[in-house]
Amino acid sequence: MKLSQLGEFGLIDRIARREHKRSTTLIGIGDDAAVLKFPGKYLLVTTDTFIENIHFKLKTTSFLHLGQKVLAANISDIAAMGGWPTHALVTVGVPKTMNVKKIDELYRGINRLARKFKIDIIGGDTIQSPKEVVISITLLGEVEKEFLLTRSKAKAGDAILVTGDFGGPAAKKFPISNFQFPIRIKEARKITKSKMATAMIDSSDGLVRSVLEICRASKAGARIWLDKVPVARGATLEQALYGGEEYELVFTVPGKDGGRRLKDKGLRCWVVGEIVSRKRGVKLVDIHGKVSSPKSGGYEHFK
Amino acid sequence: MKLSQLGEFGLIDRIARREHKRSTTLIGIGDDAAVLKFPGKYLLVTTDTFIENIHFKLKTTSFLHLGQKVLAANISDIAAMGGWPTHALVTVGVPKTMNVKKIDELYRGINRLARKFKIDIIGGDTIQSPKEVVISITLLGEVEKEFLLTRSKAKAGDAILVTGDFGGPAAKKFPISNFQFPIRIKEARKITKSKMATAMIDSSDGLVRSVLEICRASKAGARIWLDKVPVARGATLEQALYGGEEYELVFTVPGKDGGRRLKDKGLRCWVVGEIVSRKRGVKLVDIHGKVSSPKSGGYEHFK
Repeated sequence: MKLSQLGEFGLIDRIARREHKRSTTLIGIGDDAAVLKFPGKYLLVTTDTFIENIHFKLKTTSFLHLGQKVLAANISDIAAMGGWPTHALVTVGVPKTMNVKKIDELYRGINRLARKFKIDIIGGDTIQSPKEVVISITLLGEVEKEFLLTRSKAKAGDAILVTGDFGGPAAKKFPISNFQFPIRIKEARKITKSKMATAMIDSSDGLVRSVLEICRASKAGARIWLDKVPVARGATLEQALYGGEEYELVFTVPGKDGGRRLKDKGLRCWVVGEIVSRKRGVKLVDIHGKVSSPKSGGYEHFK
Repeated sequence: MKLSQLGEFGLIDRIARREHKRSTTLIGIGDDAAVLKFPGKYLLVTTDTFIENIHFKLKTTSFLHLGQKVLAANISDIAAMGGWPTHALVTVGVPKTMNVKKIDELYRGINRLARKFKIDIIGGDTIQSPKEVVISITLLGEVEKEFLLTRSKAKAGDAILVTGDFGGPAAKKFPISNFQFPIRIKEARKITKSKMATAMIDSSDGLVRSVLEICRASKAGARIWLDKVPVARGATLEQALYGGEEYELVFTVPGKDGGRRLKDKGLRCWVVGEIVSRKRGVKLVDIHGKVSSPKSGGYEHFK
């Protein structure tokens, strides 16, 4: 079987089957970040790798934006667990003919964001790459035990909420060219500290994929109300549902007015659907009440 | 300036200039692993990335060996700090035409070694790569505060010791084809627990580079006695000095009989030189007492 048949999520399934032996491992593969038990708090660990011509094109990407984007993707994963980032390791693979100024620019982007979020760059690796530029960041973070928020506690009857609109990056060919997406860490902290949310994920693989992942982890189904999905200007509904690269938060709150109470606390968020029982599956519902199945959904590597 | 002029170590210097702000950051860039302060112990973090046609050739490399090799390189970094590995994140970038069996084989190699060293695989990323296979592993580990061993406490008069012979991997064109090098974690624990050693490093970039790095971190000089360097069978002295990829330990012990006391404790090790004052520099000394300067030294990316 070729990878293109199995797909990224099939591959992750194969890998995630491994058991964990260490008593400190609370969550391994399968959430936005791994969670390790430490005295007094949880340690969060996540990693994201971007490869030229897959995640970005150098023709349309400034190195300054690229560095910020890769770190931002990692920060978003830490935020989605309810935590904050602390330490990063940055690995850069570049062809040896690359001008040092470009590498400096890349690190300037990374450092700019690192300073803003009080992240220490504590290591990494600088290596030669035969052709494509490769950037890999591992980010550590922390969260108080009581404020950890995973994907797995959504319940039937919960409202599904989002913190922004969708489809904007997908409407462009290589959305990374401009670093302009928000990092929802303040919103994530507000959500988790409210103690109202049952599950949270960042929408890096698209809205539908995010809901599918919450449902899978929570053993639940969902209804996504198509007329309620906030579609970015210039994007189609299709792009909003499946585009990815938004880094908004998708989260669940019990009851129909859960969202209202969060809005009262100053959080900008929109209800886009509800969690239902697992056997009802994950479905899209249009304004006329017509129910359809989502496509396999979301940006998936190898497919 | 092109990267090929600056070189890997020049690049690391540029990056390492960043200050650290977090009170938990004990050591950032510049040792085998970063060290973070946690209640009761230190957390160690390291990362290593291997790219096809730079670090290995698929023609001469089995995926089973490749997976083990990348994880082993990381374990060696944790060992060189005196610690033991605990959790790993594995990122694999592959072309979408790759057969899934090969990926399974890669993970089988990684899992085999992970089980042996009681490492939990807790995350990672599976992504598409346009052409070359990319494998990146971030490894976490721990060490008791009293047993942390860095590169920076070597003193003039210390003996320089090594745990094995050098040049073997360099004598082959693509040494990764067979996974056969030892992981010196037991030896490292024995060395650090003896409380005799003042500095330690793993020799992944070659013997001379390892001594240079200890001297740089310790603000010292060194004499490497060429007739004492254990040269692997089939390798030249040149390969032993500069080849790299050995993953032996290079460490320093005060006084001339420090090595003997460790040998009495059952450690196989050889004295290859001594630490001298910084102003005397790092030099090679042949059997006739002739002193020469090392080449810039060790496997360096971009050069």
